[in-house]
Amino acid sequence: MSRIEDKLQRMGESLPRPKEPVANYLGCKISGNTLYASGRVSLTRGELGTDLDVAQGQIAAKEAMLDILSIIKSEIGDLDRIQSVEKMIGFVRSGPSFTEQPKVIDGASDLLVNLFGAAGQHARTATGVAQLPFGAAVQLELILRLKDD
Amino acid sequence: MSRIEDKLQRMGESLPRPKEPVANYLGCKISGNTLYASGRVSLTRGELGTDLDVAQGQIAAKEAMLDILSIIKSEIGDLDRIQSVEKMIGFVRSGPSFTEQPKVIDGASDLLVNLFGAAGQHARTATGVAQLPFGAAVQLELILRLKDD
Amino acid sequence: MSRIEDKLQRMGESLPRPKEPVANYLGCKISGNTLYASGRVSLTRGELGTDLDVAQGQIAAKEAMLDILSIIKSEIGDLDRIQSVEKMIGFVRSGPSFTEQPKVIDGASDLLVNLFGAAGQHARTATGVAQLPFGAAVQLELILRLKDD
Repeated sequence: MSRIEDKLQRMGESLPRPKEPVANYLGCKISGNTLYASGRVSLTRGELGTDLDVAQGQIAAKEAMLDILSIIKSEIGDLDRIQSVEKMIGFVRSGPSFTEQPKVIDGASDLLVNLFGAAGQHARTATGVAQLPFGAAVQLELILRLKDD
Repeated sequence: MSRIEDKLQRMGESLPRPKEPVANYLGCKISGNTLYASGRVSLTRGELGTDLDVAQGQIAAKEAMLDILSIIKSEIGDLDRIQSVEKMIGFVRSGPSFTEQPKVIDGASDLLVNLFGAAGQHARTATGVAQLPFGAAVQLELILRLKDD
Repeated sequence: MSRIEDKLQRMGESLPRPKEPVANYLGCKISGNTLYASGRVSLTRGELGTDLDVAQGQIAAKEAMLDILSIIKSEIGDLDRIQSVEKMIGFVRSGPSFTEQPKVIDGASDLLVNLFGAAGQHARTATGVAQLPFGAAVQLELILRLKDD
């Protein structure tokens, strides 16, 4: 078993079945050693600050990240091929006065850092948007670096 | 004539005249083989879900993509120099309950895939924002890879 | 003294003390010659078009850029190591009818171009969002290229 997936299991988490994109885009695109992972949304629906609180938003962010990791695994075969996480953008569906987007996106960042250690530390933007596909609470996109073959 | 522009013409589409940026940025920045295309907005103004429906949004997305391609052509001379499309972000100006951002942005993705084939398939994030420059319906930004010289 | 910081001083600007990220992310991540700078917000709070006008938004954009440059300096030691600015995304907290995001983000782009000359010219997306962390007016993220060691 892959070292990273073994760690994920010991953390009590598991990868969902990778869902195919519902529109005309790829789950990931690889360019040299760079992997661009498409934006994925949380299963959790709702707006932060009105429907959902920070703790619920963090769970949503973790859901979206597990979804991205499952897509990446289906593309590259083994998460151990990831050399480092470079950059994330986290879009948080935010009610008019909700300003704690960074805390919400920590639900995804914490997972990456726990899983990959220093290699999982990343640059990041956490921002607030009015709406998201399917009314989801959180949407994440990711840039990774893969190990040399 | 360039192979890609010939294909565009056979698809019944044409590139608009490239419009200069209205503010202090470049239409594209090239770094090694990577081309970063700046965010461009659709000619179509209005909000999805209130002023505009999905089909109108898809036209807006295609407009914005043709605009980006015209800017890229003016920078690199010939669209045949594009090796592959890596990643797009699509911002959709969305009314409070509009959640079909992915369908809207397919108006741009379909154009790229029809034009470039497998090389035009890309990672993508389609998200919903409250406002866009000039009140436009759609804004797109793109990362491409160029062929070696 | 560094050439770029010297120029900044002659422009009457100065770098703030670099603030540590308040959440689980890095200020910057370096991957090869590419530096991804995390999204940072302006000290200025408020919404463009309701609380703040374009001129105030431009000051907010400059604040956020100086903050990013201070973080980058603390990471790479000397801003002279920057070869070029590649791409910026500027998120502007926008009231319902505010559509001048590009003018606002020029407050950051002008600073980069004045400071780095042609190397500071960049691809850019300026977009409008409903909310930002801490209720800030502007949030910026940046991709740079570093000189070879």
